[in-house]
Amino acid sequence: MELIVYCRSFEVALMAGPDVADVTDEIGRVVAASGVGEGSAQATVVGSTGSLTTIEYEPGAVEDFKRAIERLAPPGIEYMHELAWRDGNGHSHVQAALLGPSLVLPVRDGILRLGTWQQAVLVNHDIRGRRRTVEVTVLGQG
Amino acid sequence: MELIVYCRSFEVALMAGPDVADVTDEIGRVVAASGVGEGSAQATVVGSTGSLTTIEYEPGAVEDFKRAIERLAPPGIEYMHELAWRDGNGHSHVQAALLGPSLVLPVRDGILRLGTWQQAVLVNHDIRGRRRTVEVTVLGQG
Amino acid sequence: MELIVYCRSFEVALMAGPDVADVTDEIGRVVAASGVGEGSAQATVVGSTGSLTTIEYEPGAVEDFKRAIERLAPPGIEYMHELAWRDGNGHSHVQAALLGPSLVLPVRDGILRLGTWQQAVLVNHDIRGRRRTVEVTVLGQG
Repeated sequence: MELIVYCRSFEVALMAGPDVADVTDEIGRVVAASGVGEGSAQATVVGSTGSLTTIEYEPGAVEDFKRAIERLAPPGIEYMHELAWRDGNGHSHVQAALLGPSLVLPVRDGILRLGTWQQAVLVNHDIRGRRRTVEVTVLGQG
Repeated sequence: MELIVYCRSFEVALMAGPDVADVTDEIGRVVAASGVGEGSAQATVVGSTGSLTTIEYEPGAVEDFKRAIERLAPPGIEYMHELAWRDGNGHSHVQAALLGPSLVLPVRDGILRLGTWQQAVLVNHDIRGRRRTVEVTVLGQG
Repeated sequence: MELIVYCRSFEVALMAGPDVADVTDEIGRVVAASGVGEGSAQATVVGSTGSLTTIEYEPGAVEDFKRAIERLAPPGIEYMHELAWRDGNGHSHVQAALLGPSLVLPVRDGILRLGTWQQAVLVNHDIRGRRRTVEVTVLGQG
């Protein structure tokens, strides 16, 4: 049995938040390149206004998800971050912290094991478009 | 030192969501079978209307948790997922995405290291009973 | 290539919840001691009224985060946990379950790979000050 540790990052351009991108293929390509047959893919977004999770990536569910994110921390209320920094993204930081930056997915038979309607998604919560970096660590046996 | 990668899945039948099941024993059995002494157990629910976290698994806290989940994405409001699919589970997708599908627990001395009142739980958010699959990857040394 | 599994815990004293502590240095020290160059650091808080995530750790964003946590599960509403246990922390359990106990961070070139303004934070949701334990598992190659 060969044990493998394989680390790569990828970047995705997202629009002003909340914007949601399907990154299943990007993570899947890292898994394929790793040579891991059985193990896990651990993904973390770099930066404090991004998050990772899974959802059925169809326009309706994605829109519903965006609305729920805005309910968690609406742009229109007072933020103390704002009073100090006046960069307009107090809600972005809160949304990202609540959702969390990391996601762990199983690798089985050399590919990601997800549900048929389950996609890995990257969220940009910042108020401007951002090119976001996701670090992926694949651990397992070849 | 022997390095171990051990992958297994288990299934749990849950009622219409939000329904919550204690899966500490199921994950613990995979850990025991793995032979890992020190490392981690990484669990991910397969499917876009399930989630994993920890809670004190007693009826009151579980009921409170269910109510909070329903506040995050109430069944009674408009969902765009609904307009396209009419399968009635727009809120289920949003709830599951907000909570997230993955959970990482430490393995120490061959068992899960959790708090006394802390249990690993699987949530079904779908509007019908579902038999849900959880994939567990145990990584560590024997 | 040498494969490393390195497990350590640390403790942090927090005030009554929601209280938030920057634990980036604590996790970073475990990473440094592990000798792992490329891999991941997996952190989990022990106990059902704590959580882990990342945020820009500046007083304003932290205060905004605390307010959002209190909106998710306000202390002032009815909790069934309360009716059974009367320990006053029904909201603490719900908040912690929604945020989740685990966090996975990439290790690259022997250090944590985070954004410039992104810190790993530990949250105490309990209604009294708590000394909380975080278990860290570092997996990777030396």
